[in-house]
Amino acid sequence: MLANTPPPPYYAVIFSNIKSPDTEGYSEMADRMVELAAEQPGFLGIESASSDIAITVSYWESEQAIANWKRNAEHQVAQKLGKDKWYAAFQLRVAKVERAYSY
Amino acid sequence: MLANTPPPPYYAVIFSNIKSPDTEGYSEMADRMVELAAEQPGFLGIESASSDIAITVSYWESEQAIANWKRNAEHQVAQKLGKDKWYAAFQLRVAKVERAYSY
Repeated sequence: MLANTPPPPYYAVIFSNIKSPDTEGYSEMADRMVELAAEQPGFLGIESASSDIAITVSYWESEQAIANWKRNAEHQVAQKLGKDKWYAAFQLRVAKVERAYSY
Repeated sequence: MLANTPPPPYYAVIFSNIKSPDTEGYSEMADRMVELAAEQPGFLGIESASSDIAITVSYWESEQAIANWKRNAEHQVAQKLGKDKWYAAFQLRVAKVERAYSY
């Protein structure tokens, strides 16, 4: 589903990754993180697609909301498992959305 | 493939879309647009993933580079076909990448 975000400015966290062969537990954790992110203050929406690589873009009201989400205890467990186990490589980019168009 | 971008700041164009049932000609055009984008001044990289929705993020040195790409004649033909034929819905967001981490 496309995220129904408010007019800019707001922030995007662009998380691009390549999975390792060990995907045990990944899918459940990914679902839980989407559910948990949506409960956080300042969360605006999330979009995910996965084929050769996976891209998840989450949208946030402010940099502070992103910083809080990064420090969330349950999310920190997921981050560690991701680095240790699920991701062969990733790029995480924090960006300020300045303009948006929809159709 | 993950994009090997330089240190921020730079710009991201986050293009999220849902395809219409009519995909005739789409795949060839998408391949051609990736090839053409990569030839443009200020192009830094591109990442794409596609499942329920598709997300393509292209990275650019400057807003001017994005504006030039938007106006590219062959790209404009693709944009029109996209709106008229290939996309049921899309969101296009232009964002300034402020921080990046990789693993």
